[in-house]
This record gives sequence, C-alpha cells and structure tokens, in this order.
Amino acid sequence: IIVAKVDELLRPHGVLAGKRILVTAGGTREPLDPVRYLGNRSSGKMGYAIAEAAALRGAEVILVSGSTGLNPPRGVLVKMVETAEEMRQAVLAEYAACDVVIKAAAVADYRPKEIAEHKIKKTGETLTLVLEKNPDILRELGALKRHQILVGFAAETQDLLGNAQEKLAKKNLDMIVANDVTLPGAGFNADTNIVKLIYRDGSVEELEQMPKKRVAEIVLDRICDLLTKRG
Amino acid sequence: IIVAKVDELLRPHGVLAGKRILVTAGGTREPLDPVRYLGNRSSGKMGYAIAEAAALRGAEVILVSGSTGLNPPRGVLVKMVETAEEMRQAVLAEYAACDVVIKAAAVADYRPKEIAEHKIKKTGETLTLVLEKNPDILRELGALKRHQILVGFAAETQDLLGNAQEKLAKKNLDMIVANDVTLPGAGFNADTNIVKLIYRDGSVEELEQMPKKRVAEIVLDRICDLLTKRG
Repeated sequence: IIVAKVDELLRPHGVLAGKRILVTAGGTREPLDPVRYLGNRSSGKMGYAIAEAAALRGAEVILVSGSTGLNPPRGVLVKMVETAEEMRQAVLAEYAACDVVIKAAAVADYRPKEIAEHKIKKTGETLTLVLEKNPDILRELGALKRHQILVGFAAETQDLLGNAQEKLAKKNLDMIVANDVTLPGAGFNADTNIVKLIYRDGSVEELEQMPKKRVAEIVLDRICDLLTKRG
Repeated sequence: IIVAKVDELLRPHGVLAGKRILVTAGGTREPLDPVRYLGNRSSGKMGYAIAEAAALRGAEVILVSGSTGLNPPRGVLVKMVETAEEMRQAVLAEYAACDVVIKAAAVADYRPKEIAEHKIKKTGETLTLVLEKNPDILRELGALKRHQILVGFAAETQDLLGNAQEKLAKKNLDMIVANDVTLPGAGFNADTNIVKLIYRDGSVEELEQMPKKRVAEIVLDRICDLLTKRG
C-alpha cells in the first residue's frame, strides 16, 4: 500500500487532475432472441486498465462498459450497457461535459434486424439472419467534437496501419491505438498488447510488447501531451 | 470448514461414490470471423453447481465447459471448449466410460456456415449471415445410450412442458430439467432457479424457486433413485 501511494504521488498528476475522462470498454452484445446474441471477444482489459490508471492520476473517470468478466476499477463511475445503441446513449449523455474520450470498447458493427420475442426453435437445416448496421458511435463523436480529445482503437486482422489511418481520418480522431489481434501477446484476452499509436499529422509510434497496464500509462502520457499542446 | 465437512459426511455418498459422471455447462461460441461470434446467455452456474455437488458425493466428475466467468470447482476434471463441435468431441470421447451424463450446457443450435478468415469490414448497410445446423449432441448420446443415465436441460421461453416433453422423448433421455428462462429468479445468470423435473413415465415434479445449489442436490438425489432402481 505504501509503495502504491508513493507511486501515485510521483505520477504526473498535473495535466489529468480534475479532467473528466470517458472510457468505453468491453464488447457489446446484440440479441437475436431472449437467449442468443452476437458478441465479440473483447475482454475489457485494455479499457479497464486505462480507466484505472486515469483515476489514479486524479481524473474524474466515467467507464461505460459492455460485458466483461472484470471487476470495475475503484474510484471510477461505471455504467454497464449491453448493446451498441445502449452504449451510444450512455456516451452521448456524458460527451459534452468530457475533456477526453477514449473508446476502447469493441462495438458490434451490425445487429440482427429483428429480435425474436421467443427462443428461435431449430426447424430448418439452415437459418438466414439479416443484420443491419449499428450506429457508428465514434463517427458521431468525431462530428460533434468541440474541445474534446478523442481517442479510438482499431483491432484489425490485416492491413493494420492502412485500416487504422483511414479510421483516424474518417472519424476525426486525435489519436488511434492500433493493434493486430492475430499476433500472440496482443489483442483480446491477452494481458499484454503490441500497439502502434497513430496521430493526425501522420506520425506513427510503435510500442513493443508490454503489459496492457503499461500501454495504458503511455496512452495517458500522450493524451497529456495533446492536452498540454492545446493549452 | 467444519460445517462443510460434517455436511459432506452426512450426504448420501453411497450411490454416487466412484460413479463416473459427465457434466456439460456454460454456453458454446460459434465464430463468424476472428473477432465475432454467436453466443448465448448461459452463465454455467447450474452445471457448475451440479459438478461440484456430485464431486462432494464422491463421484468422479468430468466437466466439459463452454465459456463462463466461473472458477472450475475443486476436485473436478475440467475440459474447456468453445464450439458445439468441440463440445461434441469432448463428450463423445468420455461417453462410453460414464455412468451418468448431465447436459446442462446451452449448445448453439446453429453456427455460421462460413467462418471469415479476416475481420468482416462494415461495408454494406445490411449483412446476411447464413447459419447451418450444429450437430445435436444430446440426440447422438440418446441414440448411443447403453447403460448410461442421460439427463438433459430445456431452457424455454414458451410452452415449457410441451417443448421439454418432446425433447425428452426425441432424445431418449431418462430425465429432463425444464425451466422457463423468462421468469424472474430462474434461468441464465440468476443464482436461483425454478424448474420442473420430467421423467420417462410422464410424471412431472415441480420445484419451487430455490438456489441453483439446492436444485443441483435434488437433481442428484433423483439420479441416485434412477441408478438404484436400475440396480
């Protein structure tokens, strides 16, 4: 406990102290019927690590979380949500009052067009599911952006840099954290990550494999730099 | 700890001691691509409670488990699986040597016909997903049944008794545990359950709402009766 306290005192509280930071984490679930859903493999570890680290630096942290098996970090305001639409509502309600938004959640791009009221019985040999697009929360936040620093994540399985740079531009982000989820020691469920940090000026910072908690600290350091530059 | 020990000593070890019991629990996940999957809301609590209680009664327990956020119970042999097909393989490998099989898992009835090698990008306004039937593990076990006691679960949202009785007959089960997952205090994620136990002779035993651990004990008591009658 003493070590933790000293550690906390030595951190660069300055820039984030009192800042309002919204973090999203975990994956959304899109129901097909009362029993089944479309999900994704986000463990929530990266987002929870960022939320916890930001709170330790003195920020007021709001964590909007999809399903994870994790305990919410201490000292953080947590709102649990299930679907992309629920996450959208929760994020939009807080957005105007936030200084920084970090969208680490894996939000489903598509949801079933119709949700069956009762459990779908297995009758036919095949079942065709029509999915429709979910709202693009990050794009909406980018379009509404005023004073906020907006940070996104890109979990890709191919053409990491190209896909991430396109996402940064299209969604009007200030920074994007990109990781190739197919690498061992990176992505979903791993305790470590291998990420690239990409900025609006086109610069790319490649980080080596490190614990997600360490990635969280570096992401927050870079956000502090962005806040300082903005003045 | 002393209470637990006394409790353990007072249990009817006799019938289950040394019996080999296979329990399945949790939900399966059927991948669409490296990131997304079709899942279901099984928490694994009911199956894990049965596995733990059977081990405490002296049975040799094999737990074949899909995704859950639970810690495997002590003294139980656990095999983690992801898809219905993996669960099928794991169960069939152990089936011949088992005296009792309790299938509490929520196995996906359908899986995506094709698994995309890379993360599906959101291009179109809609996405059509073709699902194909998964193997029906319980039906296969029913057809292969020799000396085993075979117990199934039915999680329904309507016509509970009708659906469960049909399942009991079609799959050649000895008993089925049926619950309406729409009731408060029953089904997925709840710590309690409200179940009906249905037998081959058509008799139905309705249990009131009670903790899943208590349901587990009653299910095992009834299985002991079935084993004793069989002699």
